[in-house]
Amino acid sequence: MPRFRLIVEYDGTPYVGWQRQENGPSVQGALEAAVLSLTGETVSIRGAGRTDSGVHALGQAIHLDLARSWLPYKLRNALNAHLGMAGERVSIVDADAVPDYFDARFSAVKRHYLYRIISRPAPLALEAGRAWWVPKPLDHAAMHAAAQMLVGHHDFTTFRSAHCQARSPVRTLDRLDVTRDGQLIEIRASAQSFLHNQIRSFAGTLKLAGEGKMTPQDVRLALEARDRTACGPVAPPEGLYFLQVDYPAVIPERRGNQGQTDDGADLS
Amino acid sequence: MPRFRLIVEYDGTPYVGWQRQENGPSVQGALEAAVLSLTGETVSIRGAGRTDSGVHALGQAIHLDLARSWLPYKLRNALNAHLGMAGERVSIVDADAVPDYFDARFSAVKRHYLYRIISRPAPLALEAGRAWWVPKPLDHAAMHAAAQMLVGHHDFTTFRSAHCQARSPVRTLDRLDVTRDGQLIEIRASAQSFLHNQIRSFAGTLKLAGEGKMTPQDVRLALEARDRTACGPVAPPEGLYFLQVDYPAVIPERRGNQGQTDDGADLS
Repeated sequence: MPRFRLIVEYDGTPYVGWQRQENGPSVQGALEAAVLSLTGETVSIRGAGRTDSGVHALGQAIHLDLARSWLPYKLRNALNAHLGMAGERVSIVDADAVPDYFDARFSAVKRHYLYRIISRPAPLALEAGRAWWVPKPLDHAAMHAAAQMLVGHHDFTTFRSAHCQARSPVRTLDRLDVTRDGQLIEIRASAQSFLHNQIRSFAGTLKLAGEGKMTPQDVRLALEARDRTACGPVAPPEGLYFLQVDYPAVIPERRGNQGQTDDGADLS
Repeated sequence: MPRFRLIVEYDGTPYVGWQRQENGPSVQGALEAAVLSLTGETVSIRGAGRTDSGVHALGQAIHLDLARSWLPYKLRNALNAHLGMAGERVSIVDADAVPDYFDARFSAVKRHYLYRIISRPAPLALEAGRAWWVPKPLDHAAMHAAAQMLVGHHDFTTFRSAHCQARSPVRTLDRLDVTRDGQLIEIRASAQSFLHNQIRSFAGTLKLAGEGKMTPQDVRLALEARDRTACGPVAPPEGLYFLQVDYPAVIPERRGNQGQTDDGADLS
């Protein structure tokens, strides 16, 4: 069966999260319903990363197998028409035909996330649900300095949810940059894979650094403690955006999942 | 009575517009209700410009008179608390005490608006209600060239709503710039005052220029026709943002409204 990769944008607000669940509408469910409505096929869609309720995506990547060899742009347009008719806040921004050994999750070599904070006294009207509102002033340079303590190959036990299902808490964080543009503070994180709530745990801890409540050395000690209680309060989901997934230009053929460093957490 | 100037941000989506109306919730009504709830005072709030349903504001300016000499930041915070309790999508971003001859509308010397277009094949998920989705490619340089035909002192009959109440269709447009950042095309307009639907009429016409359906010369002829039917289809409200109002550093004392060039349209 022909396999397709779709790049998906969604507003996480009305969904229980990426993954199909009993307790409400999911992005995965919305996409699978659109495919069923378009082609009559019941498919199981795999995403590059699961996202929690309220977390947004600009570039979630998924794969699915269909009976027909669709022209990718026609598949994109037809699925968007069905998503629109269903009133979903999900849009397919790109579509490609891929080899049948492409796997949206296991072929990924890097994932990029953005966490948005708006720091100002006034509550958010236009950006409500789109950023974390922090009324207190934040020192973004202090946040960036603290963030550099986390970059590299570490045991991130401190910064993962108690519900994280990854076998190992060890990850290599390639980038954790904090920048400011007026009231907007952006945290950009890149790694091959992330642990459950890892970026929101970083954001909550870096906010304390921005308020002067933690020094970079405190953040380093929190990391080294390998203790969930050393983490700052987890930042809310509405500031988090799944930006982009990178794949090799030539996808290597897989023989099962052995040797994959991604053990499948990636629940942000 | 002490007079205050407030700078107001709002999401225009749930409102019938700036102005109090019988047919649904307005931004003005939300603010007046917050004042009543906070101070028990029934006030009439004047805005620098009226906005239509679905039009947003980052920096609408208003004035109101209150019985008490509030510290401005306390007034801002207290009104925001009452707006939040009422579930309004309105936020006071700044507050100042001003002289009693300050008038949000008549003291304004310049108004700045932004119109956002997202040009891409996929419908908008995250930016739905926040920009005009145009699926066709647009040539922003052609749009900018056409826009320059409109800058200056002109009779803008072609570009104002049939419902516009301004006495004169003549305005001086100081700036109409079109820029692009990836899929996002931004139109920035500045003038002392605007006619009803003027910027959305510009945006609709400039979109035709971006599609190659109107040349800059066609846009100039449309302006010179002074005929509403020469205007492109009016662009939808969700792309429009009332950005900022400028006032003189020292507000001149007024003797009535005579001599004001603002004849009070400013319904965007």
